[in-house]
Amino acid sequence: MLRTQIIGATGYGGLGMIELLLSHPEIKITSLLAKTDTGQPISALFPHLRGFCELRVDEAIPDRVGVDADLVVFATPDGVAMEHAAKLRAAGIGVIDFSGDFRFASMAEHQRYCGRLSSDRAKTHVCHGLLNETVYGMPELFRRQIEGARLVGNSGCFAVAMLLGLVPLIEGDIVEPGSIIVDGKTGVSGAGKKPSSINHFPERNENLTPYRIATHQHGVEVATILERATRTRIGLTFVPHLLPITRGLLCTIYGQLTRPAAAPEIRNVFVERYAGEPFLRVLPVGDAPTVKAVVGSNVCDIGVSVDTPNSRVVIVVAIDNLLKGQAGVALQNINLMFGFDEQLGLARLPMYP
Amino acid sequence: MLRTQIIGATGYGGLGMIELLLSHPEIKITSLLAKTDTGQPISALFPHLRGFCELRVDEAIPDRVGVDADLVVFATPDGVAMEHAAKLRAAGIGVIDFSGDFRFASMAEHQRYCGRLSSDRAKTHVCHGLLNETVYGMPELFRRQIEGARLVGNSGCFAVAMLLGLVPLIEGDIVEPGSIIVDGKTGVSGAGKKPSSINHFPERNENLTPYRIATHQHGVEVATILERATRTRIGLTFVPHLLPITRGLLCTIYGQLTRPAAAPEIRNVFVERYAGEPFLRVLPVGDAPTVKAVVGSNVCDIGVSVDTPNSRVVIVVAIDNLLKGQAGVALQNINLMFGFDEQLGLARLPMYP
Amino acid sequence: MLRTQIIGATGYGGLGMIELLLSHPEIKITSLLAKTDTGQPISALFPHLRGFCELRVDEAIPDRVGVDADLVVFATPDGVAMEHAAKLRAAGIGVIDFSGDFRFASMAEHQRYCGRLSSDRAKTHVCHGLLNETVYGMPELFRRQIEGARLVGNSGCFAVAMLLGLVPLIEGDIVEPGSIIVDGKTGVSGAGKKPSSINHFPERNENLTPYRIATHQHGVEVATILERATRTRIGLTFVPHLLPITRGLLCTIYGQLTRPAAAPEIRNVFVERYAGEPFLRVLPVGDAPTVKAVVGSNVCDIGVSVDTPNSRVVIVVAIDNLLKGQAGVALQNINLMFGFDEQLGLARLPMYP
Amino acid sequence: MLRTQIIGATGYGGLGMIELLLSHPEIKITSLLAKTDTGQPISALFPHLRGFCELRVDEAIPDRVGVDADLVVFATPDGVAMEHAAKLRAAGIGVIDFSGDFRFASMAEHQRYCGRLSSDRAKTHVCHGLLNETVYGMPELFRRQIEGARLVGNSGCFAVAMLLGLVPLIEGDIVEPGSIIVDGKTGVSGAGKKPSSINHFPERNENLTPYRIATHQHGVEVATILERATRTRIGLTFVPHLLPITRGLLCTIYGQLTRPAAAPEIRNVFVERYAGEPFLRVLPVGDAPTVKAVVGSNVCDIGVSVDTPNSRVVIVVAIDNLLKGQAGVALQNINLMFGFDEQLGLARLPMYP
Repeated sequence: MLRTQIIGATGYGGLGMIELLLSHPEIKITSLLAKTDTGQPISALFPHLRGFCELRVDEAIPDRVGVDADLVVFATPDGVAMEHAAKLRAAGIGVIDFSGDFRFASMAEHQRYCGRLSSDRAKTHVCHGLLNETVYGMPELFRRQIEGARLVGNSGCFAVAMLLGLVPLIEGDIVEPGSIIVDGKTGVSGAGKKPSSINHFPERNENLTPYRIATHQHGVEVATILERATRTRIGLTFVPHLLPITRGLLCTIYGQLTRPAAAPEIRNVFVERYAGEPFLRVLPVGDAPTVKAVVGSNVCDIGVSVDTPNSRVVIVVAIDNLLKGQAGVALQNINLMFGFDEQLGLARLPMYP
Repeated sequence: MLRTQIIGATGYGGLGMIELLLSHPEIKITSLLAKTDTGQPISALFPHLRGFCELRVDEAIPDRVGVDADLVVFATPDGVAMEHAAKLRAAGIGVIDFSGDFRFASMAEHQRYCGRLSSDRAKTHVCHGLLNETVYGMPELFRRQIEGARLVGNSGCFAVAMLLGLVPLIEGDIVEPGSIIVDGKTGVSGAGKKPSSINHFPERNENLTPYRIATHQHGVEVATILERATRTRIGLTFVPHLLPITRGLLCTIYGQLTRPAAAPEIRNVFVERYAGEPFLRVLPVGDAPTVKAVVGSNVCDIGVSVDTPNSRVVIVVAIDNLLKGQAGVALQNINLMFGFDEQLGLARLPMYP
Repeated sequence: MLRTQIIGATGYGGLGMIELLLSHPEIKITSLLAKTDTGQPISALFPHLRGFCELRVDEAIPDRVGVDADLVVFATPDGVAMEHAAKLRAAGIGVIDFSGDFRFASMAEHQRYCGRLSSDRAKTHVCHGLLNETVYGMPELFRRQIEGARLVGNSGCFAVAMLLGLVPLIEGDIVEPGSIIVDGKTGVSGAGKKPSSINHFPERNENLTPYRIATHQHGVEVATILERATRTRIGLTFVPHLLPITRGLLCTIYGQLTRPAAAPEIRNVFVERYAGEPFLRVLPVGDAPTVKAVVGSNVCDIGVSVDTPNSRVVIVVAIDNLLKGQAGVALQNINLMFGFDEQLGLARLPMYP
Repeated sequence: MLRTQIIGATGYGGLGMIELLLSHPEIKITSLLAKTDTGQPISALFPHLRGFCELRVDEAIPDRVGVDADLVVFATPDGVAMEHAAKLRAAGIGVIDFSGDFRFASMAEHQRYCGRLSSDRAKTHVCHGLLNETVYGMPELFRRQIEGARLVGNSGCFAVAMLLGLVPLIEGDIVEPGSIIVDGKTGVSGAGKKPSSINHFPERNENLTPYRIATHQHGVEVATILERATRTRIGLTFVPHLLPITRGLLCTIYGQLTRPAAAPEIRNVFVERYAGEPFLRVLPVGDAPTVKAVVGSNVCDIGVSVDTPNSRVVIVVAIDNLLKGQAGVALQNINLMFGFDEQLGLARLPMYP
């Protein structure tokens, strides 16, 4: 059994990891750490876990990090994992991080990303020595590198959806790489468990709010990774919107066609590129993804349309932001890192209705 | 493998059964029947099932009922199962029914229940010969009888919550049996998949609607079963309300105490009565059940409070109406009927957030 | 023009008052005070007010209270109005308060109410000299006393609904006064604008939460006022539930009949008791109130049902918690206090859909 | 008093018109017509109207159309108004239509629009003789022509938002006219009162659904009107999405800049273009419109952002789809047609929270 420690266990990210690992036959959670709400069983914070998990949450003091663990999951904000990774790696302990700390291959890339964070969240990287070792945690792009890796930077939730929609378009030279517009919509859980004015129920309910227009960090993340993977300069405008739903994320991606192409032809490019992928469904032309068809699962639905008169392709991608967008893709990565079946613990149906 | 046929496969009840059985290691779905939307794979109707289940839905003509099956699940309205049960039983095929057809032990009981249905739903029973064989499908009340049974009438969703809250109160002589008031609240999925004015999104959203005030059939169902189980005459007023949520059901139960008693004492009665029950959680005094803590699972949460100045107990019970209130309790029953582990295929965490 | 100052202008209660007074032909808002978010126009806090109201919010320092005002509206928590009322009344300035400070006629009543508040909210009354002057702000019960009054304690939101449902039952000797159960359901806005875990969108959405079971202060408020108005000892169990909606409040009231009576007969008692009331609608027997039919207006809908076999009446009452439950009834009171038409500024249709 | 007949009174569009006209001091509703649910008072269908409007709904037979009316409002689908307009105009009766029948100036334009409708909704125009008389009902574009007009084709809801966001961009030569992408999001009420699978609560709740990708008729409507108004060939890709909210509509508009320009500069173009407009609010740079800030009112909020590295402008426009997107703009048009103050009956605050 792989002994796993989860740091940031009291947030939605940590919770998602706990839930998945509880039913994983090869992994055992050995400890839960957090900064707040410590000293009590996790089920006191999340009553739905009563009877399923009674592990105590301990304070995340440095001495506890990595204790009794083969793997540490950092379900923490930017700047936490980078403080512990070197020591953990030196001790031979695997690390997967949910923040941007280990998504990038150089300080320059990391700084470009941090430029999009608010000043209290942006951090100077304190562990750049590991940036040439870390792998970007998207199996559909970097499966070979993730296999056997011991340091993985899990993708951002919007980045997962955008990349899955864009990779075949750029690799296949289907759209002009400078013409990309992504209109993103996300459920509220993406913003975490901490109450805020913007997600107070009376404010969020029956509302729709665009935010960080053309300045969200996942836009830069996607451009960076895409440029690295495809060696093509990307021009991408990304505008996220906050939906009045709890889970689910959908991106509508627009791009100018490099040459005339019909939807079935472009769909075929997706089908071929993603052949054998265990969690991707390329829908028939004419069908559009919805969040309801994927929420509760690690599945990603992709739909292809073409606006012929205007020579544009429209790709719609839907995922559960907390699963394929966070803990689900993390477990997919962990399975690859440690040689388990990639789908182990992830065979969950979407929840409907 | 137990070969199982699901009739009414295109409704929410049938869907719930499909989803649970897909991951059950001892049961195999051999056919899906329905009255409408037939001739296509079930995933064409429920796109979230793409890649998980591609079985075709066939028209529910009499000749197909029971074919290639050891068990037939009727996820159908009142009046359907009663037409087929005799033939199926004669052929040695097991039957579980989601309607009221086989919940009662006599024509009189069934007629009392039907008196609460609208005229187009009330049916004269055509299979009363089996009423002395059928078992009411609530394991917490009739586990011994369900074990090995081959004809079970699955409980109504509100009845599950009411009975789980009332049984210890009546058995323990804690409340006056004529003083019971149940204020029920349910999500919309309980009304099924067929669009209607009352559940059109703009009408249901941001709304709360009481309905069938003191005339809902589940009130009679509960009184009937409770009287049978406890040999006590029950006086129960039940008022259901439609919530603007998809899944989840909560009952707030009020009763006059027969003698002074504090909440911890009454809670103990529940704890003892339900010791060993795999899906029931009796919460600490001071904690109240919520639907969010149970939805997505077969769990039932129960909370106990006392209004001392007015000598009343308040029991709150929460379940997922589509799982513990329908397909989940059905699978619990099926496991008991066929000798599988009672929890097999039901070890699902609630989904949160 | 009646010069009015609103204290607590940045909460939902103060906002509701601002919105109503903006279109009142006889009242002018002269100043807005608050404890936080001061120094900026109210429209910076509530962007929907841009172009409608650009008044600046000033800090609520004692010297500003009552300045340039004929009326001060305290849209503040318990304990604030009591500190200022004596000085304001001495200066001939009218006072209406949204908290419990001036709802009661004696220290004993006020203490009984405070016993239900959390310790940080309960206050020892510092202005009991005015308790014999203040009027309980429910026009349907105390219209004569409110007319011309200069100190009014506005009703609590749940109290409005409960009292409107109970007064005819108790006055008419229809139910046993010790047998009353009120199952309340409220939208989230009743808990105010301050973000909290319980009303964080992912926690509240798709949820239902009972709270303060049989210990909510509005239960005591109703019993106290009802006992005063009807000189009858009341036994009332009140259990509120938090709904996943923004506005709207519905109470389902249960009582044991003193003698057999059918629904139309009891409905007539309501119709006669409330003849001429401008904002009350007693629905035809068979129709049930819903929150959607009243939200956005000062209207209260009342429905009457009888459970004949169990000799119980069921009264359902629905209001908009922020209008008839707060700012709407406040304006009704203000109109009566200052001799304006009772309906002035309140002729708003419910918003549907 | 302007005597007004509303046809299609039992839909959301007709209802919105009724609600606004009830409080209009110069207009009197003389009759309500509809195809279904006739023979009863409108308040039997819409219980929130009890006590506010008890007019009977009559069957919409041809002989009743225009009777006792100076103005007929067609709140009806495509193809209805065109059958009656000639007769009404010949009788000197004013006509305003909510469908596409009279939005266009030629058969060619109308056919282009109908090409986007489903076959059961597309109609061959039977009244092209009036197409040179009709005016497109958007005051911000065609105020002069609407003043005194007697035949107006009210704008489509998405078209209102798109045009208000695009007109200054095109008129001001700010964006490449062939580069426009509009990502639209709408509440469910835009689809009307008729229950459907897609808007059944359990299906719509917690969901987001793109539909008619790049083929929605309002995309063609906008291009047509914009080309007519600005004499510029427009290339526009429009993708609408169905939100899980009742009211509200938001468009995120993307366009390639013709030359470098910062957000404040572009915002100034909007401020100048819309100076004096009674219902438009151009937000400060850095603020984004939300639906919550406009719903319940006739207000339109517009926000301007620029993605400098990619030379794109992002315009966000938010309206209440049933008011500024339908009945509100209709009343604005009616006021202009008949010489009333443009804002009469429309001075409503948004409803918040």
